[in-house]
Amino acid sequence: MATAQRMVVIGGNAAGMSAASQARRLKGPGELEIIALERGGYTSYSACGIPYWAGGDVAAADDLIARTPEEHRERGIDLRLHTEVTELDPDGCRVRVRGGGDGDGGGGDDSGPGKWLGYDHLVIATGARPLRPGLPGIDAPGVHGVQTMDDGRSLLEALEETESARTGRRAVVVGAGYIGVEMAEALVRRGYRVTVLDRAEEPMTTLDPDMGRLVREAMVGMGIETVTEAAVTAVRTGEGGRVRAVATEDAEYEADLVVLGLGVRPETGLAREAGLPLGESGGLLTDLAMRVRGRENLWAGGDCVEVLDLVSGRDRHIALGTHANKHGQVIGTNIGGGYATFPGVVGTAVSKVCDLEIARTGLLESQARSAGLRFVTVTIESTSRAGYYPGAAPMHVKMLAEHRTGRLLGVQIVGREGAGKRVDVAAVALSASMTVEQMTSLDLGYAPPFSPLWDPVLVAARKATAAVRRAGAH
Amino acid sequence: MATAQRMVVIGGNAAGMSAASQARRLKGPGELEIIALERGGYTSYSACGIPYWAGGDVAAADDLIARTPEEHRERGIDLRLHTEVTELDPDGCRVRVRGGGDGDGGGGDDSGPGKWLGYDHLVIATGARPLRPGLPGIDAPGVHGVQTMDDGRSLLEALEETESARTGRRAVVVGAGYIGVEMAEALVRRGYRVTVLDRAEEPMTTLDPDMGRLVREAMVGMGIETVTEAAVTAVRTGEGGRVRAVATEDAEYEADLVVLGLGVRPETGLAREAGLPLGESGGLLTDLAMRVRGRENLWAGGDCVEVLDLVSGRDRHIALGTHANKHGQVIGTNIGGGYATFPGVVGTAVSKVCDLEIARTGLLESQARSAGLRFVTVTIESTSRAGYYPGAAPMHVKMLAEHRTGRLLGVQIVGREGAGKRVDVAAVALSASMTVEQMTSLDLGYAPPFSPLWDPVLVAARKATAAVRRAGAH
Repeated sequence: MATAQRMVVIGGNAAGMSAASQARRLKGPGELEIIALERGGYTSYSACGIPYWAGGDVAAADDLIARTPEEHRERGIDLRLHTEVTELDPDGCRVRVRGGGDGDGGGGDDSGPGKWLGYDHLVIATGARPLRPGLPGIDAPGVHGVQTMDDGRSLLEALEETESARTGRRAVVVGAGYIGVEMAEALVRRGYRVTVLDRAEEPMTTLDPDMGRLVREAMVGMGIETVTEAAVTAVRTGEGGRVRAVATEDAEYEADLVVLGLGVRPETGLAREAGLPLGESGGLLTDLAMRVRGRENLWAGGDCVEVLDLVSGRDRHIALGTHANKHGQVIGTNIGGGYATFPGVVGTAVSKVCDLEIARTGLLESQARSAGLRFVTVTIESTSRAGYYPGAAPMHVKMLAEHRTGRLLGVQIVGREGAGKRVDVAAVALSASMTVEQMTSLDLGYAPPFSPLWDPVLVAARKATAAVRRAGAH
Repeated sequence: MATAQRMVVIGGNAAGMSAASQARRLKGPGELEIIALERGGYTSYSACGIPYWAGGDVAAADDLIARTPEEHRERGIDLRLHTEVTELDPDGCRVRVRGGGDGDGGGGDDSGPGKWLGYDHLVIATGARPLRPGLPGIDAPGVHGVQTMDDGRSLLEALEETESARTGRRAVVVGAGYIGVEMAEALVRRGYRVTVLDRAEEPMTTLDPDMGRLVREAMVGMGIETVTEAAVTAVRTGEGGRVRAVATEDAEYEADLVVLGLGVRPETGLAREAGLPLGESGGLLTDLAMRVRGRENLWAGGDCVEVLDLVSGRDRHIALGTHANKHGQVIGTNIGGGYATFPGVVGTAVSKVCDLEIARTGLLESQARSAGLRFVTVTIESTSRAGYYPGAAPMHVKMLAEHRTGRLLGVQIVGREGAGKRVDVAAVALSASMTVEQMTSLDLGYAPPFSPLWDPVLVAARKATAAVRRAGAH
């Protein structure tokens, strides 16, 4: 152990444990000691799976756990649960650790500031924390977050308690973003009468409002009350201090259960205190190898960092497990003596509410505008399959292209089966800086059960090409 | 009319009528007279939809017709059905026409060589003809092709006739390519006991044999008898001269119905006689604007041309409605005074047999080898959704990457729901000449109902990246 380097990982989920596992694949314990510190009791779980667990699609909590603490330990990772880092000392190459472990040179006690743990490489993978507005009643029993496994467990218990209770149970979901609409679906499946409240003009602000409107109309069609431009002012409690209703400026919505789906912020308090470079969102800034900018042996990845948006050229905070895993892979490869980079993202996201699929990649109109771009937009309606083939369902595709150059800037899709993953075509085209005109001749898979003769993405590209040409004439 | 140019189109289906329609959009009748000559009685129909009509997924023949003759005529196209071109005279800018029309300066009579019709622009869109081996009994009643609407009608009649007949009806499909497997599905749905015969080692020779094997195993699992390395020697007839069985070198397979799905060849007899340039497959050779090579006012598109395969740099014959439509669009734009090109294809195709989805893009091993490429191959098994999400189904992805450069060369996918259209990601990556390492950081849509944390295509790209690296060390 004397000559081995030490890698310390803060955070036992996607980015952290991917980094640890990948480094371990490349370097044995004789070369590299790996200590992973996790504040909670779980590792490598799918937070994005929690709404499906809540909805009953996923039977057991264990299904969401990709790798247990025992499995990590078997692979030669010194994993310490219930262990919190209370301070970073990048110049001293050490972190202060409290609770949990009592391993050599490592763990601290459960109170006080904790003990110092030295490192050769530090990986910051502290994730994100859910937004929780400081409203009256927000901590009342019956108000649930959906970020951690503990959140999930507590929500499941609440759902199962009320399962046998009276019918006509009501749930209010605060926030109509990805988590909000996924939770609306879950609660509908559990038999709740669901109201979703959002302060924005339309649900899904990851879409432009005209596409968000399609989502709202579909949600209403599913029997989900969808109230927009509604600012929540308080959670009202009743008997035993339990939640009873959610109040907005204009109204009150009865609720036996409240779910908060208000998005997340990077968990970077320690990094901030240590003077590490943070972006506008509060996420850590890294280089392409996922090193914290300007730091040789300090790495960061997952929901606590900002990523380069390749379309706008700006750093953005996008909390998504798939990025976190890629970050971990890159960090682990680099610490393990290999070479890898994370070039950035194009902003792809896909979700669904019941049978409505919602996807986007690239920039929204507002994002393109604030990046200083001039652009044209087109929207088309097509179908998922040949029009004559059973199950062909309508699909709306919106496309943004840069003025003059015709470069693709973004795509949004709302439709039924087969709509969501179609956005991947645009995601690859964005990575390749294709123009919408180049896209019109893409050789996409065609057969009647899979696509109309012109895939909806190509129909949009054709229309966008014409729009670019018209605009270019002026 | 005196000053208008005349565009003559041979072939009233995808490529020809797209060209005519697009040219009409750009130029009115005062500028451009458009005459379209169609040998049969239908226009703009989906030949690729015929198997689904046969299977009962598509109720009516009319559903397969995108635009009727009347609709074309209403848009100012002088469409002449049952009109055959018997000779091309490119130097004289005229074609000899027999049958059908009696319009001014145009149609001929129904016998003899026909009358000459002059043109300023000629579009050759004569399509492809199905292979029909010269075997004993091949023309017996009960043997069906599935290329034209008339084929479809005759097959439907045969199916409906036998519908009420005894159970245990048997069908033999000759050829296990796209049409063959789609027809196998259709006949299974009609209640037939189906045998598919193919002379190749595995079904679907558009895949490598190791991937074709997965298709065979799935077909057998569906109760479709799948006999490979079986060369058909004769169709045996019985009572009334009707088909009774199909004989191979080794065996005889009882059949109440036989369907031929042996692929197609370009229909270019007239072009050959006129000395126009043809490729190895017999398809017409064009430039990027879809002009016949070396000819100023002669255009060709659809199933009668060869297309540039962008991955191998070779011209290939790929009969596919989606290409035909794009060709027509390009030709119509250019004749209409605009500018458009068809840069080529990457060889994407997707199909299904019952719930098994089959897709490919780029080069097979054999194609890569014959193009002179050195490459690595990897195959992975993953799932269509997060493993814990209901409906997650296994998916096999095979990937070819060029030695040293790591450039993506091809992808083949066999799986269930969600497998087929995933090939589009690789199709776009091929168009953009991406390396498999670049692909590992693609920002593809992720959410548990849509994909595992690492999309199967990315899993394959990671494995291929490692394989390229290992091979490059030697």
